[in-house]
Amino acid sequence: MSYPKVILALPEWVEELVCDPDREYPTEEDRMRLAIELSRRNVERGTGGPFGAGVFDLSTSRLVAPGVNLVTATNLSVAHAEIVAIMIAQQVVGHFDLGGHGRPAYELVATTEPCAQCFGAVPWSGVRRLACGARDEDAREIGFDEGSKMDDWIFSLERRGISVVRDVCRDEAAAVLNEYAEDGGEIYNARQGE
Amino acid sequence: MSYPKVILALPEWVEELVCDPDREYPTEEDRMRLAIELSRRNVERGTGGPFGAGVFDLSTSRLVAPGVNLVTATNLSVAHAEIVAIMIAQQVVGHFDLGGHGRPAYELVATTEPCAQCFGAVPWSGVRRLACGARDEDAREIGFDEGSKMDDWIFSLERRGISVVRDVCRDEAAAVLNEYAEDGGEIYNARQGE
Repeated sequence: MSYPKVILALPEWVEELVCDPDREYPTEEDRMRLAIELSRRNVERGTGGPFGAGVFDLSTSRLVAPGVNLVTATNLSVAHAEIVAIMIAQQVVGHFDLGGHGRPAYELVATTEPCAQCFGAVPWSGVRRLACGARDEDAREIGFDEGSKMDDWIFSLERRGISVVRDVCRDEAAAVLNEYAEDGGEIYNARQGE
Repeated sequence: MSYPKVILALPEWVEELVCDPDREYPTEEDRMRLAIELSRRNVERGTGGPFGAGVFDLSTSRLVAPGVNLVTATNLSVAHAEIVAIMIAQQVVGHFDLGGHGRPAYELVATTEPCAQCFGAVPWSGVRRLACGARDEDAREIGFDEGSKMDDWIFSLERRGISVVRDVCRDEAAAVLNEYAEDGGEIYNARQGE
């Protein structure tokens, strides 16, 4: 019995967009605007849902790995933008723990607050900071399901040494969600208790 | 700028162990014992942590995809046994939603109750049933961190139409955890609030 490999690659347009490895993203807004641009182009190019992310090295302000939602493109329900960015960052760094001894602080930037799965994945990734654009309710408003998340999810991350910053360019991030919905974009995984 | 692909493949020994695609696993215990065997061999072969899983088609009682913990082997913190089984099952089926219209009911069997990440991933996968062997506290007892999970995580899954059965061969599943700890196995991702 032979089982398929799982292969996950970024769409080619992502590598064209983030083509300068030396570019610095010094402010939270700089980093979020890149993630928002990823979310917008992901919809325009038809490669996935309206979500973008990135893992940044806070010691250099450089991008380590971009991420876009690739659920439909890869047939992987786990391939949310945050998970894609984390997985690629770990391949770049060569370790499953971005927070290991001697490493700089890495930040995960996500255009929407994490769903229940991505919330649970953040501590295992080793990132030290999470920056979010749109809020859960912005995603829910257009029909996306964020899953069952603890009310105190932010406190829970901070207790684990992961700082959380919300509402970074929230309106710009939410605008991509709203445009996606207005254009009739697919709201996958919205089944509940069928 | 070129980013690495993420490639995740099962260790060769897994395909040797589950070599008969027509084998049926009619009882919950049959299915769990396969997952436990996967967890045990994963440790013996040095391919990962003491966790095994499988996605089964409940209409045929056959295995769709096995999973083992591949965090250290692949440098992917998300590569818990459940996630590996779900990702491979979705490649086998050719869709990101195992619970889509017209599909049989799929069950995720896991040797330990899901951590916060895997709990969040279960609804997105489309499985209709989750069977667990060891409890959270059995994993915590040897130092593994199950993450911040809602107290009513089982109710939360059942409300979404996913039935949950616990304590399937719990002692046999927990025995693998205990043997792993006694043999000095690595307890990765145990940092908290450093």
